[in-house]
Amino acid sequence: MTQHKYLLNENQIPTQWYNIVPDLPAPPPPALHPGTREPAGPEDFAPLFPMELIKQEVSQESYIDIPGEVLDIYKIWRPSPLFRAHRLEKLLDTPAKIFYKYEGVSPAGSHKPNTAVPQAFYNAQEGVRKLTTETGAGQWGSSLAFACAQFDLECEVWQVAASYRAKPHRKTMMEIWGATVHPSPSDLTEYGKSLLAENPDHTGSLGIAISEAVGMAAPHPDVRYALGSVLNHVLMHQTIIGEEALLQMQMAGETPDVLVGCTGGGSNFGGLSFPFLREKMKGNMNPTIRCVEPAACPSLTKGEYRYDFGDSAGMTPLMKMHTLGHSFVPDPIHAGGLRYHGMSPLVSHIYELGLVEAESIAQNECFTGALQFARTEGIVPAPEPTHAIAAAIREAMRAKETGEETVILTALCGHGHLDLASYESFLAGKMVDHSLSESSIAEAMKTVPVM
Amino acid sequence: MTQHKYLLNENQIPTQWYNIVPDLPAPPPPALHPGTREPAGPEDFAPLFPMELIKQEVSQESYIDIPGEVLDIYKIWRPSPLFRAHRLEKLLDTPAKIFYKYEGVSPAGSHKPNTAVPQAFYNAQEGVRKLTTETGAGQWGSSLAFACAQFDLECEVWQVAASYRAKPHRKTMMEIWGATVHPSPSDLTEYGKSLLAENPDHTGSLGIAISEAVGMAAPHPDVRYALGSVLNHVLMHQTIIGEEALLQMQMAGETPDVLVGCTGGGSNFGGLSFPFLREKMKGNMNPTIRCVEPAACPSLTKGEYRYDFGDSAGMTPLMKMHTLGHSFVPDPIHAGGLRYHGMSPLVSHIYELGLVEAESIAQNECFTGALQFARTEGIVPAPEPTHAIAAAIREAMRAKETGEETVILTALCGHGHLDLASYESFLAGKMVDHSLSESSIAEAMKTVPVM
Repeated sequence: MTQHKYLLNENQIPTQWYNIVPDLPAPPPPALHPGTREPAGPEDFAPLFPMELIKQEVSQESYIDIPGEVLDIYKIWRPSPLFRAHRLEKLLDTPAKIFYKYEGVSPAGSHKPNTAVPQAFYNAQEGVRKLTTETGAGQWGSSLAFACAQFDLECEVWQVAASYRAKPHRKTMMEIWGATVHPSPSDLTEYGKSLLAENPDHTGSLGIAISEAVGMAAPHPDVRYALGSVLNHVLMHQTIIGEEALLQMQMAGETPDVLVGCTGGGSNFGGLSFPFLREKMKGNMNPTIRCVEPAACPSLTKGEYRYDFGDSAGMTPLMKMHTLGHSFVPDPIHAGGLRYHGMSPLVSHIYELGLVEAESIAQNECFTGALQFARTEGIVPAPEPTHAIAAAIREAMRAKETGEETVILTALCGHGHLDLASYESFLAGKMVDHSLSESSIAEAMKTVPVM
Repeated sequence: MTQHKYLLNENQIPTQWYNIVPDLPAPPPPALHPGTREPAGPEDFAPLFPMELIKQEVSQESYIDIPGEVLDIYKIWRPSPLFRAHRLEKLLDTPAKIFYKYEGVSPAGSHKPNTAVPQAFYNAQEGVRKLTTETGAGQWGSSLAFACAQFDLECEVWQVAASYRAKPHRKTMMEIWGATVHPSPSDLTEYGKSLLAENPDHTGSLGIAISEAVGMAAPHPDVRYALGSVLNHVLMHQTIIGEEALLQMQMAGETPDVLVGCTGGGSNFGGLSFPFLREKMKGNMNPTIRCVEPAACPSLTKGEYRYDFGDSAGMTPLMKMHTLGHSFVPDPIHAGGLRYHGMSPLVSHIYELGLVEAESIAQNECFTGALQFARTEGIVPAPEPTHAIAAAIREAMRAKETGEETVILTALCGHGHLDLASYESFLAGKMVDHSLSESSIAEAMKTVPVM
């Protein structure tokens, strides 16, 4: 009988994360101190992160052991299933084989707990009392809230104001796990106050929320900050997705011809693709690997590869990455998530090396694909992976034209149970496609420091 | 290392449902025709259900094969995991071992698709074009919408007006799967119109929504009605939960001393417990088996065991069951689901036979337990299984007093992602306990027919 899921046992959960950095043909450019513009050292990150994560951020080891305490919590939802999308294939009438790794089985409903748990663990180990963070739609904030509950850490979240108001249930979810949630900009930080003074109805942005969370952590020795994407250690924690998927594709007896993953900060994409990129660099397989981003926030396909700040206020180290400018505020009509102004420096570097491709897709195509997916495969995707689904469908339709049995692999990085308002707008025919114009990109790029 | 999950493979999914009826020491009383009050025959059910389900409803076979087409869709989420709640046990500091079978992994997020899928399948096989149904909070309506999408059936749902207004996202979910959703009472049926004429802001009830859905199906030869709980065939479809749990408890090397399950219409409880009750009747184990219901809707513990209608308008056959009266409307302050006026006739009968026990729990205790559960086990429970969790915690605390290593098994029949408003009210300290008074029960019982 047809097999739908490829399941691993608990004892098959990978016990090491994969660090792609030492395997790359060239090292990624270093982060720079925002004042001196010299390469940033561990001491520059120490007010924000525990030493173990700083070490991981700059590690030259290919593999790093996952602590037993972390594996123990991973087991709440890991290993996650790999599905063959037989029903979607049938609907599309394609010879392609579509596989998807599903990360929505985690308590928070996305891949984010894969890094939230180790981040909370290392902070707890180093005596930290509280973690601060930002969140947009709420996937990351709820993941960190869940993780902090596991290690008795306090958790304080600055949520982009537009989402805070539109999605009250995400706040409830974070509170269920014991976190405190503020809308950003807030009157708790000087930066937030200054923005609210200009505009009391400010809708916020991820960059602003990062500035607030960083600003509340740095001055306190027992408070640290946690970032849900972008940084090397975050992407490395997510490689557990790709390591599991490698084993599961083996079970299915297939190797991918094309791997597509949605990219906002890059952690879902890096998590799925890096282990496959390793095998590709070793010559064990030869998949095309492609980032998929929203047309409304096209950092890779339309941003510039330059040093920029990770936050709006310019408090973080400078990172070389594809950026739309740290003052970029995505159009509120964009419902699909993935709204960060920059792309992970590591993904940006790999893209510059020509090891991966990128494309952008507008949101109506994404939600059209998501509806086809939900009605066949059952699962209602979060807005972010609708981009990956739309890209997989594009590939499957290409295969239909050529008649090739293309093997497509993607990650369904979360379910959409807490993002149904986006679907409501789509079903009502009210979703508007918004492709970022050259002029608005040029405007936002003005804030990028001239080096 | 500690094992958290007991996972089966796809090829271990049970291929038969278990029908407990022939194994009982006495047969359950028959349903009666609402007019003649004579035992209802297949022809009385034919306007509502396809013949295959009517046969299952009165079957004397102990096992019924699950069709391959149904198994194929079950594989989207089945087999479901069985968890050992190590973290909750640690928090409670109890020697008890708590196991829970988790059904929230289904696309609709609850156990309901276990019966929605076969119901849609048999209807499609018999040429039905459209299914109608009722839904309260939306778990059943979304499950049937999902199932209908799999077999290209239309699906029309009457949702209790109070939930329709308070939970717009459930409607969106049903629409994603292609269903049409109306608030109940609606102006689409004569009964609905008459209620709206009395009170344009009528908040509705499950009984009223059933009357509307039944009324829209019965006159049309290509439209049938689907019920999400209460009936024998529904409970039988759900026994796949208990059959899997039996295998998984074997893997864990444990037999339950106590089994607790939340009961609204009885399908989750019957699904988990009937296979264990079979083993108990065979002398293979001896668990205490207990129903847990809300203090606000205590049909088993405070209702009377009498013939009553399944719906408010009195259109269905009469069923002998524990009932609060078919005109019963639960207090809107009750947030915990499980609001049906009657209990499954089969569960009622088994309760009368003394094979299972029952208790009721008020909602603040339920949500207190749910918060302890979410912060340790990670999963945010739906309001319904918070009752099961509270009962499991009661048992675990009893075990702590006696020092016994009691093995407790329960079902976490769904996640609460679409029910976070209940948690919001609890976290704000605004949840009010409401135990149904003797006088209001007496009032509702006045509508029960005198036989």
